[in-house]
Amino acid sequence: MLKYDKKGPTSFALGLTLAFEALEKASCLRLYLSPDLAEGETKSRLIAKAREKGIMVISNNNKVFASLSGKENVMAIAEFEKMEKALDPGLDHCLLVNPMNMGNLGTIMRSCLAFGVTDLALVEPCADPFDPKVIRSSMGAFFSLRLTRYKDFESYRSQFGERALYPFMLQAKTHLGEVDFPHPSTLVFGNEAKGLDPSFLEVGTPLLIKISHSLDSLNLDNAASIGLYELSKQRG
Amino acid sequence: MLKYDKKGPTSFALGLTLAFEALEKASCLRLYLSPDLAEGETKSRLIAKAREKGIMVISNNNKVFASLSGKENVMAIAEFEKMEKALDPGLDHCLLVNPMNMGNLGTIMRSCLAFGVTDLALVEPCADPFDPKVIRSSMGAFFSLRLTRYKDFESYRSQFGERALYPFMLQAKTHLGEVDFPHPSTLVFGNEAKGLDPSFLEVGTPLLIKISHSLDSLNLDNAASIGLYELSKQRG
Repeated sequence: MLKYDKKGPTSFALGLTLAFEALEKASCLRLYLSPDLAEGETKSRLIAKAREKGIMVISNNNKVFASLSGKENVMAIAEFEKMEKALDPGLDHCLLVNPMNMGNLGTIMRSCLAFGVTDLALVEPCADPFDPKVIRSSMGAFFSLRLTRYKDFESYRSQFGERALYPFMLQAKTHLGEVDFPHPSTLVFGNEAKGLDPSFLEVGTPLLIKISHSLDSLNLDNAASIGLYELSKQRG
Repeated sequence: MLKYDKKGPTSFALGLTLAFEALEKASCLRLYLSPDLAEGETKSRLIAKAREKGIMVISNNNKVFASLSGKENVMAIAEFEKMEKALDPGLDHCLLVNPMNMGNLGTIMRSCLAFGVTDLALVEPCADPFDPKVIRSSMGAFFSLRLTRYKDFESYRSQFGERALYPFMLQAKTHLGEVDFPHPSTLVFGNEAKGLDPSFLEVGTPLLIKISHSLDSLNLDNAASIGLYELSKQRG
């Protein structure tokens, strides 16, 4: 019985689209094909891609699918090695401090890639970025990002602290949209429930997304997508 | 045993914060208090608010909580009448065509309110906007919006078609951010999986949120929040 193990060395890309992405971009160990996947072009292309990369193909094991995919009808699963990739010091980063919701994390990966930010830093504790649910909700964007976890914000800052940092905070005075982002910049977002600690008011240039007084805050992934969108407008 | 019925006349606001919102802004029938809610200021304020509005308070029924709130620890539930409210013809609208995901719909309600768009139109088929899960993920924004469902887009257009319409589409040529929104405008977003039908290219001014070629599209609620954010920047 195959199951995702948070502490194990591998994770799983569920479904045809994600399996192709994983075969192309990750270091894969095995490709599982559902007995329900009919002979045909898709199956042939998957197998050809696996052979090209020297990856084992397993196609007689229905239990893998039952245990990993739950109720969903998944036709292929790629098992890949969990690997963090060092962030590019020359590029913009997105830094998430203690993101705990897997769906949010995947959606933010998708927005990062959509707006050309390919480097994602996470400060622990945080949701497991390798969990198949995160990969799934990233719609495969996961496989196109560099990703590093840091045990605290200081660990990130000691490595990249000389660049321009923009913590998104409700207490900030500068409005997003009034700022010219130097290259490279880092956009910093806090936890879903608590946002960033007030100590971040002393970090770089805190930014505010102006919202109505009727509401406390935006959803984290909405706030992140708006920040990333404004950055991408300036990067052209 | 109390359960939410999609076809019934009432819905439920779960939790203290939402119950207060419902008591204040909706037409409530009953307020249920959990036996686990201790005597104290919160309980007194809830009961006082219910009395002020002439709403029945029920506090000895634990089953209501088990059936409606599942695993979550909910201390109060307000039962309110489902009511659609006519949209204000003088204000900006957000129009969602066939939104099917309840979490997305709630999050978009939150973004609408955050960016000052208080009028939300839905084209059927769509997720049930009165479902307690939608109310929950709107963080209460639901109670501050006017909301109307239309059986098709033409029904909306026959009522509001003379205003400026902006369908968000990947096939659009005009970039969001290049456009000055006349007052009032309507932002139009399609279904999570399929977006808007190509026929919307003939409607108003289709707008594009420019994203990287590495990705097919943005998450619906991220796209909506970005559109609403740009609109709100122009409304000041």
